[in-house]
Amino acid sequence: MSPYEERLKALRTELAHRNLDGFIVPQADEHLSEYIGAYAQRLAWLTGFRGSAGSAVVLATRAAIFIDGRYTSQVREQVSSDHWSYESSAPQTGVAAWLGEHVPERARIGYDPWLHTNRWTAMVRASLAQRNAQLVAVDTNPVDAVWDGRPKPSDATLTVYPDELAGKSSTAKRKELADCLVAEKADAVVLSALDSIAWTFNIRGRDITHTPVALAYALVHVDATADLFVAPEKLTDAVSQHLGTSVRVHPRRVFAAHLATLSKKKVAVDPERTVAAIFAALEAADTVVVEARDPAVLLKAIKSAAEIAGHKAAQLRDGAALCGFLHWLAREAPKGGLDEMMAARTLREFREETGCLRDLSFATISAAGASAALPHYQPTDGNQRPIETNQIYLVDSGGQYVDGTTDVTRTVIVGTPTAEMKDRFTRVLKGHIALATAVFPVGTRGYQLDTLARRYLWDAGLDYRHGTGHGVGAYLCVHEGPQLINSTMRADEPLLPGMILSNEPGYYKAGDYGIRIENLILVVERGIAGAEHKMLGFETLTFAPIDRALIEMSLLTQKERIWIDAYHADVMRLIGPLLKKPAMDWLSTVTRSLDASTSRKK
Amino acid sequence: MSPYEERLKALRTELAHRNLDGFIVPQADEHLSEYIGAYAQRLAWLTGFRGSAGSAVVLATRAAIFIDGRYTSQVREQVSSDHWSYESSAPQTGVAAWLGEHVPERARIGYDPWLHTNRWTAMVRASLAQRNAQLVAVDTNPVDAVWDGRPKPSDATLTVYPDELAGKSSTAKRKELADCLVAEKADAVVLSALDSIAWTFNIRGRDITHTPVALAYALVHVDATADLFVAPEKLTDAVSQHLGTSVRVHPRRVFAAHLATLSKKKVAVDPERTVAAIFAALEAADTVVVEARDPAVLLKAIKSAAEIAGHKAAQLRDGAALCGFLHWLAREAPKGGLDEMMAARTLREFREETGCLRDLSFATISAAGASAALPHYQPTDGNQRPIETNQIYLVDSGGQYVDGTTDVTRTVIVGTPTAEMKDRFTRVLKGHIALATAVFPVGTRGYQLDTLARRYLWDAGLDYRHGTGHGVGAYLCVHEGPQLINSTMRADEPLLPGMILSNEPGYYKAGDYGIRIENLILVVERGIAGAEHKMLGFETLTFAPIDRALIEMSLLTQKERIWIDAYHADVMRLIGPLLKKPAMDWLSTVTRSLDASTSRKK
Repeated sequence: MSPYEERLKALRTELAHRNLDGFIVPQADEHLSEYIGAYAQRLAWLTGFRGSAGSAVVLATRAAIFIDGRYTSQVREQVSSDHWSYESSAPQTGVAAWLGEHVPERARIGYDPWLHTNRWTAMVRASLAQRNAQLVAVDTNPVDAVWDGRPKPSDATLTVYPDELAGKSSTAKRKELADCLVAEKADAVVLSALDSIAWTFNIRGRDITHTPVALAYALVHVDATADLFVAPEKLTDAVSQHLGTSVRVHPRRVFAAHLATLSKKKVAVDPERTVAAIFAALEAADTVVVEARDPAVLLKAIKSAAEIAGHKAAQLRDGAALCGFLHWLAREAPKGGLDEMMAARTLREFREETGCLRDLSFATISAAGASAALPHYQPTDGNQRPIETNQIYLVDSGGQYVDGTTDVTRTVIVGTPTAEMKDRFTRVLKGHIALATAVFPVGTRGYQLDTLARRYLWDAGLDYRHGTGHGVGAYLCVHEGPQLINSTMRADEPLLPGMILSNEPGYYKAGDYGIRIENLILVVERGIAGAEHKMLGFETLTFAPIDRALIEMSLLTQKERIWIDAYHADVMRLIGPLLKKPAMDWLSTVTRSLDASTSRKK
Repeated sequence: MSPYEERLKALRTELAHRNLDGFIVPQADEHLSEYIGAYAQRLAWLTGFRGSAGSAVVLATRAAIFIDGRYTSQVREQVSSDHWSYESSAPQTGVAAWLGEHVPERARIGYDPWLHTNRWTAMVRASLAQRNAQLVAVDTNPVDAVWDGRPKPSDATLTVYPDELAGKSSTAKRKELADCLVAEKADAVVLSALDSIAWTFNIRGRDITHTPVALAYALVHVDATADLFVAPEKLTDAVSQHLGTSVRVHPRRVFAAHLATLSKKKVAVDPERTVAAIFAALEAADTVVVEARDPAVLLKAIKSAAEIAGHKAAQLRDGAALCGFLHWLAREAPKGGLDEMMAARTLREFREETGCLRDLSFATISAAGASAALPHYQPTDGNQRPIETNQIYLVDSGGQYVDGTTDVTRTVIVGTPTAEMKDRFTRVLKGHIALATAVFPVGTRGYQLDTLARRYLWDAGLDYRHGTGHGVGAYLCVHEGPQLINSTMRADEPLLPGMILSNEPGYYKAGDYGIRIENLILVVERGIAGAEHKMLGFETLTFAPIDRALIEMSLLTQKERIWIDAYHADVMRLIGPLLKKPAMDWLSTVTRSLDASTSRKK
């Protein structure tokens, strides 16, 4: 019997003991984090699936795993079809719909209320009602009961995030949150999102992969004092002193019980970022719940001057590491023998050489040839593809530095591109430039700009199936809300000066190659003579060369050529001095003016 | 005492008799129509206000009228401030918010459940609850009780809309609706929107200004039979024969009572298009209500080949009338002495000369100089502005023809424009062209295209505060859902081949001038060599010259110049032969190639 077969069997026995006909296992933690700690990797433990998003449902005689379009092939490699059926997580076929079709009449289906929102439970409950079945909250997670050797939550200590980097003291931030509570006529707010807590208290942790946050909950009160719930062993003297007397620290495990002290109080809770168990505890405590977005979300998205300065410093450092890597790649790849894993490792080494890297901001997408056609591809040991001549290589990566979080994609050709590759690359680049140079009135939402990045692909009957931009944190999450440049998800959130986003149009040809050009951009005010509205635009923060060998000059307008030349001049001016001699010479060559390169050809 | 003071007093007396502390008077009919019949003009009768949208609230000692930004000056001219306070209808200050602040504790506020949606009543109820006040449905409208000489609903007879123009028989349409009911597992659907009824039964009426519909309700059943509720005197033999035996005709007044026959049935009702009274009647009848969009809305929006052919014929006829008018204007306006009302009347005469005009599709926006800065301006007798030299004149108008509904805006200069006018006009034109030539994949929603029409204005710090496009009916409503090109209202509705929309970017300089260039456009498939997606684009349906005197050539790209020349060549080719000699010669001059005009200047 394979270990996964044994685990599934053990879980079914446990469910039978608990009088449950099924159980739902999401890829989630109690904070609904994008990346989760090892202790919360229940889906991977149970099924073998290593993707970043998914859910499983285990019934007595059936088990299904639900994944999105990114993982249709990966799930087949990692999860045995002997015991699991593969299902799409799309609404029509996802967990709720599937349960409505497959559970026995009057079944009792368990779920862990610390891992789901109320919206999710309402949806699943409605679906189960079709079979007169019930959704039952468990007190303890049955997966944990049968998971031998389950990792303990990390006991990494907290560190203080200095006011000089944050640009705003925790006291000032708690005052801002208290002002939001006054506006909402609430007495307190529950903070459950780990990055909101790290931001509010100017602390960082090491409990979650890729994101420097600590497992914690917090309550911020209308008097700007707070209760912070965190494992006591994570506190150092420096952190305790930093938190001060206005922040009462409690063990994380007493959080739910502590909510009883809020009886009769008006408590703001974010229904998208807070699990059902917390709502249940607040109801049991007889509080008046006000559903409202976590007020730290927007405050955190608008970077302070210090955070912007830190971000820029981190970008230059990271840009130099990336340029070092691209130079290495340009030199080594044509010789043959490289593969995706080697490239990802080498890029990490360049970042580590900065001496400042705290973590990667996400697992590197190092993708050669057809791998690059999968926007979220990650190579794994043993399955990596070689980096071959006349093929595209795409690398999407980022670092966590104490002063900023980076996220950058470059697409290069090893050898000679086809005319089609150049056509596609140039259309993606035109879209990238159109967004980078967009000017728009205050009040514009990100989804209004998405089309600017797509239209040159549309003109040729092409498109890409992902958003054009996401928010990025300041030494926090690499995917941070609330702003987005995405016409499908359509965050109804005006772009505001100080927000940082990615600008990452792409093109993917299945089984062949993929292209993405990603820089981070900062929303800034744009002064325009005679303007009747306050106008905004973007400042590009990321500096690394764009592969001129992939540019089809005849598709560019003069304005676009000028933008590329000016951008490359900035890359050389800012990154060049950070490089050693051969890399610096290489950078000087690859960032020279496009017109110069054209005339050299003649 | 003024008549309006008397009417207000009479209404208050009536309310007191009915033990009501207040009453809400919307600009609405029982079908939530955009334009309403004279019998339903309660707001105008009570207050004197003649705008197209608004509401009033009458309390014992206060009365307020709620209007949107279009009507801030008009309301002050038409409604006495002695008796009415002026309020904005924006959510923060609208009827619900205002009631929450101003009604006495425990007040009983009346409303007519035939004039409001459930969503509206829920919102107002929640607001009144703050003062422990109640919202009370009235059996009969108290305004009607005191309105001496209230017009009767129109008794105009129905006409048959021929299958040759509709392109689809009523039987086929009812079958399509029945298919929707099968998909929704419903037994019947309530049709309350007058254009849905006219479309479904291939009938037209004359009960509402600007829209050829008749006051009626309908039920369509899953067996594709129907019940039509319409005043019996509206039926002619031809109509009865056309409706056939599968359509049971009942007097309109028995509609609510008839709903009792649907007891226990599953009935689909559109919550956005159906008033609270109908929901109440269905609940009283113990039906199972399924809230779903009226299925005729989308079916109607996708024009049949016959409707498209009819639309094109109507556009040419209407275009010839408009060109005749523009020629007249070009000849007469420089002489002086014209005014906005004269121009609107003359344009109507040109349309009437076609012999086919059934109605204007909306009240003509005939706007000179500063009038044009108000996007929804309408001149009134005695308040019209003269059409003066070196000023802009904007005319937004349309006709109802049996084969199609038109809506077109042209902006012209009488005399010589300023450089700023040319700059603004050309930016609007560039946006118009960008939308007209857009290519986009199937699945694209209208709001994704809105930015294409704005960005040249944005580049100069300018914008316009209205959507870029609305749907248009086939001899039905000039504003027809569900599709929109509007980034604020964001209809989540993919554009589909056969949909007709307006393309109408603009620019408005308060107190000075306004610009709008509006053509109707048809969504069509676009074949592109090598396309990976099914791509769509637009075919322009409206033909009339764009004033070259307002074009700043240096702002145009070569592609834009080519588009304008090709468009003008089409105008001449299609409209020229429909004009008489002097107008035809004029059209030939104003549609000549831009390059030709440039070289002539040299």
